[in-house]
Amino acid sequence: MADPATTVGEPWGPSEVPTTALLTDHYELTMLRAAFQSGTADRRCVFELFPRKLPDGRRYGVVAGVGRALRALSHFRFDDESRQFLLDRGIVDQQTADWLADFRFSGQIWGYAEGEMFFPGSPLMVVESTFAEAVLLETVLLSIYNHDSAIASAASRMTAVADGRPCLEMGARRTQELSAVAAARAAYIAGFDGTSSLEAGRRYGVPTIGTAAHAFTLLHDNERDAFTAQIAALGEDTTLLVDTYDVDEAVRTAVELTGGKIGSVRLDSGDLPVQAKHVRSLLDSLGAIHTKIIVTSDLDEWQIAALSGAPVDGYGVGTALVTGSGHPTCGFVYKMVARATSDEPDAPMIHVAKKSASKATIGGRKYAVRSYDSRGVADAEVIGIDKEPTVESGRDLLVPLVTDGEIVGREPLAAARERHRKAFAELPLAASKMSRGEPVLETVFV
Amino acid sequence: MADPATTVGEPWGPSEVPTTALLTDHYELTMLRAAFQSGTADRRCVFELFPRKLPDGRRYGVVAGVGRALRALSHFRFDDESRQFLLDRGIVDQQTADWLADFRFSGQIWGYAEGEMFFPGSPLMVVESTFAEAVLLETVLLSIYNHDSAIASAASRMTAVADGRPCLEMGARRTQELSAVAAARAAYIAGFDGTSSLEAGRRYGVPTIGTAAHAFTLLHDNERDAFTAQIAALGEDTTLLVDTYDVDEAVRTAVELTGGKIGSVRLDSGDLPVQAKHVRSLLDSLGAIHTKIIVTSDLDEWQIAALSGAPVDGYGVGTALVTGSGHPTCGFVYKMVARATSDEPDAPMIHVAKKSASKATIGGRKYAVRSYDSRGVADAEVIGIDKEPTVESGRDLLVPLVTDGEIVGREPLAAARERHRKAFAELPLAASKMSRGEPVLETVFV
Repeated sequence: MADPATTVGEPWGPSEVPTTALLTDHYELTMLRAAFQSGTADRRCVFELFPRKLPDGRRYGVVAGVGRALRALSHFRFDDESRQFLLDRGIVDQQTADWLADFRFSGQIWGYAEGEMFFPGSPLMVVESTFAEAVLLETVLLSIYNHDSAIASAASRMTAVADGRPCLEMGARRTQELSAVAAARAAYIAGFDGTSSLEAGRRYGVPTIGTAAHAFTLLHDNERDAFTAQIAALGEDTTLLVDTYDVDEAVRTAVELTGGKIGSVRLDSGDLPVQAKHVRSLLDSLGAIHTKIIVTSDLDEWQIAALSGAPVDGYGVGTALVTGSGHPTCGFVYKMVARATSDEPDAPMIHVAKKSASKATIGGRKYAVRSYDSRGVADAEVIGIDKEPTVESGRDLLVPLVTDGEIVGREPLAAARERHRKAFAELPLAASKMSRGEPVLETVFV
Repeated sequence: MADPATTVGEPWGPSEVPTTALLTDHYELTMLRAAFQSGTADRRCVFELFPRKLPDGRRYGVVAGVGRALRALSHFRFDDESRQFLLDRGIVDQQTADWLADFRFSGQIWGYAEGEMFFPGSPLMVVESTFAEAVLLETVLLSIYNHDSAIASAASRMTAVADGRPCLEMGARRTQELSAVAAARAAYIAGFDGTSSLEAGRRYGVPTIGTAAHAFTLLHDNERDAFTAQIAALGEDTTLLVDTYDVDEAVRTAVELTGGKIGSVRLDSGDLPVQAKHVRSLLDSLGAIHTKIIVTSDLDEWQIAALSGAPVDGYGVGTALVTGSGHPTCGFVYKMVARATSDEPDAPMIHVAKKSASKATIGGRKYAVRSYDSRGVADAEVIGIDKEPTVESGRDLLVPLVTDGEIVGREPLAAARERHRKAFAELPLAASKMSRGEPVLETVFV
């Protein structure tokens, strides 16, 4: 219920995020407070972050957000302002606030590495620590994983069907301004070649791309003036947007101004397969046989598939990518799966699980292996409960991310991108089907 | 195309956003550079931010993000690091970088106030300045408006159908960690009473809510221990989650432990209308007639409607809210609609518009009035081109947000929330229908 004592302040807080600790749900803090009350806060626990299922019809998912989550963890501190806020609102008592002042996660985290594939029930993250430490991380870990993996999962389908043609991320304007930066990063992991987002370039080193919008043509007295200005500033290798007025005339002007050397032309409207074929013929007839054609109008994986037979050299994808192509969140959950029977440090662990039929959880600490058939093609997601599963051929999926509170899972973004490429290549061929279907790997609990 | 010279760096940039200037698409900067080249950068222009249409079936939209956009504008500076990044990547030349060093938006912005309703073609923001200044703002303005208005539009349908029962925002874990904070703010504007997001509480003063998750019950040796701990820490007025094991037994325990004074019980699974009726009967039979029932399992506006006849005292909404209930972005665009005929400061303005059939824009500076019928009910969105429309009864929708570069549109969040309440009350009754339909107001261009 709304707290009637709360006054609603100015919407002009800082744009900085000095700590990630308040990117947390209220109830994590009240649970902490109540656990101190009952003396259970220090019970050893295992929490697991996992998908109950894939979105309907999807055949695999792609893990993204690991690097961002580790960074968020390293900034997860309850500074003076945060603690004062929690005390002022009556969310925590003084004892809890004092404990928070010294809080640093000191436990263990294993997880699927970034860029890896996932399936229903894959234990994407296994967090082992006290209840107090593990419960606080729930919201921020889920936020990052649910968003970034939704984008990477959609992006991977797009790059799969693009089949080697470059995919370019251009969706910043269609999603929250910082989600845009995270989305560009996730898309890059899943095989996109560049992004329109400058902040994704600065922060993560993703290659950035872009030349001009319709406004640039409209600014000038005629299209020829606009093209001339753009070529003078950006060179003949630039991409000219040719659909502001008449496409044929624009293409002729572009070729004429560069002696046939214009780098690319971009189509942003109309019937793209037909347009692309027509423009290719026109370019070729004018001698501009090396000029590329980029298309960018409301593309998604099905549109990309529909363009596979058209003479297109690159796809710019916006809305569909940054909204997860129909599935903007993964529905990952973070559940307690085991706990110690008492508060003693060496108390034995028992499985725990909520019993509601529709949201049942499988208790116990998980281990995960992707098993291969005799040809080296992935054939199952094998999840061991309380023990490592043994398979004839396969590889472990859980890697150490945090050891005794120290972050050990950092890696360059390029490593995640390369992992995605390899992990996709291992999947059965049905993984790249656009039709709706079952997950390409069955999850087997052993 | 991907820039092959770019090295992909560490994914460990700062969590701070010292400037919002790079939350911008690459092509805004290359257009700026080319406009300097052709001498058109200083042409006076009018840009307009508007929806081409509402999402299919929606009857109105709600403007949100105005306050956040003004804040982003106040932090929109190209600091040394940003300019060096742009130079290093070859995105801008030295002349452009030098101009960016001094950049402060110095023009005029009018817009729909926050919390206001919108319809197809509503000119949500009118930006008047030089091309150079206006073009740079495109991406960050669209990002903020497209996200925040999508959430507010979904939230408004939920609070409309909840018809006075409190709605609580609990979706932080299902969306990017900072989108979550913006979503909580947007939902509050559209009538939600609280949020689970602590950062939304700290940053925007939104009331925060929450008590405990299933993990808290699972942590304890039995449910009674968990409830006892929670009541001891948070008081008898707390909300107990009663569906971890057996709902009836949990309700009996909750009543017994508090002598019937337990504040609320929460149901998070199962057939909620049936469960709510059963639990209400049980509570009443046990004498707990003041205990409230909160429901929280995958609710959306249709589920809330389906629960309207059930004895429910509050709705917790997560995924559907933060993903815009099927429409995670608004599809707002930012287009040049007028420009000066030359670079002279007093050159006359002409209409401009892209001509592609599927994405046509109506040229000219817009004015907007919501007109009323004789009973004071809104009956049309009247948009004047180049002049204020005259109506018998109505009110102006465009208010000054920025005057000569100075931000004048700041207001407390409570003002936007109150505006939403009033503007919704003015709409025809069909606005609160859940069935798919046409916008409840027609947009008339005059």
